[in-house]
Amino acid sequence: MNRLALPRLALTAGEPAGVGPELLVRLAATSLAANFVAITDRALLERAAIRCGVEINLIDDDGGDVEERSPGTLRIRHIPLAANEVPGRPDPRNAQHVLATLAEAADGCISGRYGALITAPLQKSSINDAGISFSGHTEFFAAHSHADVVMMLASPELRVALATTHLPLNAVSAAIDATSLERTLRIVHNELQAKFGFAEPRIAVLGLNPHAGENGHLGREEIDTIIPVLQKLRQQGMQLLGPMPADTAFVPAQRQHYDAVLAMYHDQALPVLKSEAFDRTVNLTLGLPFIRTSVDHGTALDLAGTGKADPSSLIAAAQMALNLVARRATHSSTPLQSEGTASSKAV
Amino acid sequence: MNRLALPRLALTAGEPAGVGPELLVRLAATSLAANFVAITDRALLERAAIRCGVEINLIDDDGGDVEERSPGTLRIRHIPLAANEVPGRPDPRNAQHVLATLAEAADGCISGRYGALITAPLQKSSINDAGISFSGHTEFFAAHSHADVVMMLASPELRVALATTHLPLNAVSAAIDATSLERTLRIVHNELQAKFGFAEPRIAVLGLNPHAGENGHLGREEIDTIIPVLQKLRQQGMQLLGPMPADTAFVPAQRQHYDAVLAMYHDQALPVLKSEAFDRTVNLTLGLPFIRTSVDHGTALDLAGTGKADPSSLIAAAQMALNLVARRATHSSTPLQSEGTASSKAV
Repeated sequence: MNRLALPRLALTAGEPAGVGPELLVRLAATSLAANFVAITDRALLERAAIRCGVEINLIDDDGGDVEERSPGTLRIRHIPLAANEVPGRPDPRNAQHVLATLAEAADGCISGRYGALITAPLQKSSINDAGISFSGHTEFFAAHSHADVVMMLASPELRVALATTHLPLNAVSAAIDATSLERTLRIVHNELQAKFGFAEPRIAVLGLNPHAGENGHLGREEIDTIIPVLQKLRQQGMQLLGPMPADTAFVPAQRQHYDAVLAMYHDQALPVLKSEAFDRTVNLTLGLPFIRTSVDHGTALDLAGTGKADPSSLIAAAQMALNLVARRATHSSTPLQSEGTASSKAV
Repeated sequence: MNRLALPRLALTAGEPAGVGPELLVRLAATSLAANFVAITDRALLERAAIRCGVEINLIDDDGGDVEERSPGTLRIRHIPLAANEVPGRPDPRNAQHVLATLAEAADGCISGRYGALITAPLQKSSINDAGISFSGHTEFFAAHSHADVVMMLASPELRVALATTHLPLNAVSAAIDATSLERTLRIVHNELQAKFGFAEPRIAVLGLNPHAGENGHLGREEIDTIIPVLQKLRQQGMQLLGPMPADTAFVPAQRQHYDAVLAMYHDQALPVLKSEAFDRTVNLTLGLPFIRTSVDHGTALDLAGTGKADPSSLIAAAQMALNLVARRATHSSTPLQSEGTASSKAV
């Protein structure tokens, strides 16, 4: 890539009847220094631009580089809708369209056509209604890339990885075993090195139980599972804190001691992150052979079509992708996968 | 009570070998407009004052009122230690002493000798080591008062009540049934009226599962238990929101819609509260026939004896008790129990 060229960042619109197409238009209207390539239907974006009252300049993507981009200019890799969208009313006939955009984005990132991927929200239930087994972006990209992945939510001030994600609370304890916890910690460690540039990342691991189990009085998972895994990985050189009580792990005096938190489950840490940085929280998938960031909200069907959806989270996701691409360009000329392998020697 | 008299606020020192005695001395050194009565050993406080390098003026409590208090002046209701304290090393021989201070405080609040109670932290394990079954301040006062109680943690900006408290995560789901949830919500509702002065309190009830169960896809407790209880109580006039997803319930735009949150378990909400207001978070026991506030931290045995423990949380607890006492004095001349009963008619 030309060193002066803007990073080529792939954008997927997600659910055509959701706010995604309008958010892409709003993102394109910013002056962010990226060559955005929208992987979606051209006319869908044109209609979204009209709903937003925004001028947009769509240019077919030729795979080439550019050194600058005017606000409103957006490259497009056209993948046609099956049926025109009705904002607020997802149509299962477009399920295959949505999946085709994800596959093109992932393939393009893996082959190097795109430098990173930023995804707008999709509607799982609409894809399921089309008779397709599908549980989300993250799982799709993991399967497509044959990768073990970890979900991370991050603001500029706080990074939180999750040991379990969308599980009933009652199923969380059984889902945390030594094998999965070790795999998760290795992925978080390696990605904090490879993608975030921490030479010796410090990870604060939360306990599962209140007060981190209080020496077994409030649950034994810390003693039986978490502590042995931490001890093993510390012996291999990882900087791991904890298991820490979740209620005090996020106080200002603690934050200086770690680069990221591994929470055991969804509601143990995301309320903190979102309460302090709702519109700046970005969803990242760790473990993929490419950079993927995402909004941390849903399709907002009630807002779709109004042109009023707030693009802050998508803009934050694009900004974080840009930062990670820039770090990669600065710190290494090798592809990301090799970088990950190299850094894992430190483990 | 003389209208010009300062509120008589009982203080217990908690574990004699912890930071409690030093925190009481630090609190007495402030200019807070309260007539503090320390229920503990006189010489214990004198030694704590020396460790803190603070002058203290201990006066035996005669049960009377005063209209002003100089910083450093502290009334004392002497209850002797069984063995002199060794800071950092709790001695089970003092377990009965600790319990005697709690009983005197509770009895005095119920009989009206004290206007409210503020407790410093105790060491559960030391009381247990004395062969006494004991699971904490809250449970002690509930049994002593024959009351159903609810734990609330509050900062000046956020009030969080807990449907379950110190349970292993794996036991939380089974602990939440319709009967206990209804009882908890009634207590929170009545106390927000009686003690906090909200005529029609608005309570945001969190779901148990991530995304509040996502219509049953991520757990069924919302559908089977929580929603039916909310519907029943709404029909009786309560202002209840939810079940709300925990991860977005605390964002700024939501907070204006409620006066308090009911979280289903400890780590679902306390990380938010403590991360944003660690040294201003106060523990309150709702449902007691008196006002009781507490620090939200432990005995800090590693700091005990150094005079360096931070009194911010005890000062915040005293300030909140003062605010609640002032509200009671302003809004009603009836005793608290009658006020609670009266307000519950609205339910």
